[in-house]
Amino acid sequence: MTTHSTPSVADMFAPVANDLPKVDSTLAGVRDVEFQLLSDLVGHVLAKSCKKLRPALTLLAGKFYNYEANLHRLVPMASAMELLHTATLVHDDMVDDAMTRRGQTTLNSMMNGGTAVLVGDYLFAKSADLVASTENARVMTLFARTLMTICNGELKQLFTSFNWRQTREDYYNRINGKTASVFATSAESGAVLSEAPAEAIQALHDFGYNLGMAFQIVDDILDYTSTTEDLGKPTASDLRQGTVTLPALLLMERASGENPIQRLFESGHRTEDIDHTVDLIRRTGVIDEAFAVAREFCDRASATLGVLPDGEAKDALRAILDYVVARTY
Amino acid sequence: MTTHSTPSVADMFAPVANDLPKVDSTLAGVRDVEFQLLSDLVGHVLAKSCKKLRPALTLLAGKFYNYEANLHRLVPMASAMELLHTATLVHDDMVDDAMTRRGQTTLNSMMNGGTAVLVGDYLFAKSADLVASTENARVMTLFARTLMTICNGELKQLFTSFNWRQTREDYYNRINGKTASVFATSAESGAVLSEAPAEAIQALHDFGYNLGMAFQIVDDILDYTSTTEDLGKPTASDLRQGTVTLPALLLMERASGENPIQRLFESGHRTEDIDHTVDLIRRTGVIDEAFAVAREFCDRASATLGVLPDGEAKDALRAILDYVVARTY
Repeated sequence: MTTHSTPSVADMFAPVANDLPKVDSTLAGVRDVEFQLLSDLVGHVLAKSCKKLRPALTLLAGKFYNYEANLHRLVPMASAMELLHTATLVHDDMVDDAMTRRGQTTLNSMMNGGTAVLVGDYLFAKSADLVASTENARVMTLFARTLMTICNGELKQLFTSFNWRQTREDYYNRINGKTASVFATSAESGAVLSEAPAEAIQALHDFGYNLGMAFQIVDDILDYTSTTEDLGKPTASDLRQGTVTLPALLLMERASGENPIQRLFESGHRTEDIDHTVDLIRRTGVIDEAFAVAREFCDRASATLGVLPDGEAKDALRAILDYVVARTY
Repeated sequence: MTTHSTPSVADMFAPVANDLPKVDSTLAGVRDVEFQLLSDLVGHVLAKSCKKLRPALTLLAGKFYNYEANLHRLVPMASAMELLHTATLVHDDMVDDAMTRRGQTTLNSMMNGGTAVLVGDYLFAKSADLVASTENARVMTLFARTLMTICNGELKQLFTSFNWRQTREDYYNRINGKTASVFATSAESGAVLSEAPAEAIQALHDFGYNLGMAFQIVDDILDYTSTTEDLGKPTASDLRQGTVTLPALLLMERASGENPIQRLFESGHRTEDIDHTVDLIRRTGVIDEAFAVAREFCDRASATLGVLPDGEAKDALRAILDYVVARTY
């Protein structure tokens, strides 16, 4: 998986291409609510998540064992993972707004704020309901634990913002909560619902975890290297919000003299200082080093696949690993 | 249950008095989180819910059949119902703030806003996790469905505020989502986990539903009849926020000429007009009529108890019915 050609979505999702539209239909059904405004809001939120990596992972993980007989469980589970991801984005945006807008709040954005809480809650509830429809207590438990992990990760991010005293372990814990736990559960639940043996369930959990860690690290890199246009938000928005990610951690590790992140956070966090720090991160090899860390997680993910039967599902999972480190936005 | 002496909490909870402290311990454990500030926030939120009606209902419902053998499942389930209730209060407050503060938001309240989303999410997640610890797929499913019902109710309330075109059925649907569904699930889950027969499970579900409807109707009455001091919020805050509850519905049903709620909502919703409407509601017998509706729901709740074995648990449930219509705050 060290080749860096970007695989196409068609390659990655080929084995489940016929069933992903069933996930789309399930997600479309979530819009089927009494109030047009709510339906529009949910539609708007769901339209943002176009890649559908998480549901594809559930279906692909289910492909190794009894897939067809359990498709009626795998599809709602896959849909639930996408909804869960979407729900966290809705509430995340609220938290980010609360921290960055600094009181410059209009009536309109406050109304949306109240609505956004409930729309997020609705998506959480709907995802739990879809998981319950599998009638499988093990994935219901897994889902509840994942919710906890996500919330802990979010709270950690909130409570450690503008705190430069963070270790790589703190960072790994946070991105596990934010991303890797959802990838791990997406893959593990597919394995459980397709009646995979214990060893394969563990392997697919580990695959999802390591893939998710790599995915989030690349996301955090792209926050520094992409244009505002590609990101749909300002470049280095993590740093602007006081969130320390891997590039900033590596910059601190490399700094011989004064700690550049400490200086930034303690000197008023001015725009020109942020821009200078972004420039440092881009110029000093930190980005290459961060990519190397992401590739290490991909290598670990790849290694977990050994115990699984060879075939198109395994090829697809390998293609996803290639995609994750090759993507540029 | 038509006597109106207020039963004491000791009467109502006597059969489960030894086990309610286990619920308290479980809830105290929810505060056991990494960040002191979060722990304090969670503690603050949990301290507000002092009556513990919902967890008592789960334990009492469990008392009719195999209680002791399933106590290790009943206690987390009971705790989860209290946490779920608390989580909805946290998010509700945010929605209410968003609608009433009308943009007069300080940085501080916005910071709390962002934190409140995550604290609410954390409580939702923790409650789902406690339900999962029962290892019972049926109550997990029930819990997920209840989450959906609550969210639908909240969204209905949000989207129908300042809309006077509402029927009693709309109102009953909303308060089912807000309250009765949680009471119904509190009781039903206790029945399921104590291995009650199907008929008893249905009876306890129906008991919880009707009790919850009566409880919320009385809550909505007290919003008009209590003092600001007793309520801890302004009298008639429902009307002030444009929420139409049973007293306002009955006032509209009784009005021979112009619709007083329509006039209020369409004439700028001025404080003096609100005060005039509150006065109308207090003077015109609407409150007595609303209490009669609450008592009807209590009678229906009482009737469901017929199929259950006589004994202290049944006596306690009857005492709760008496309490609900006799309480004054």
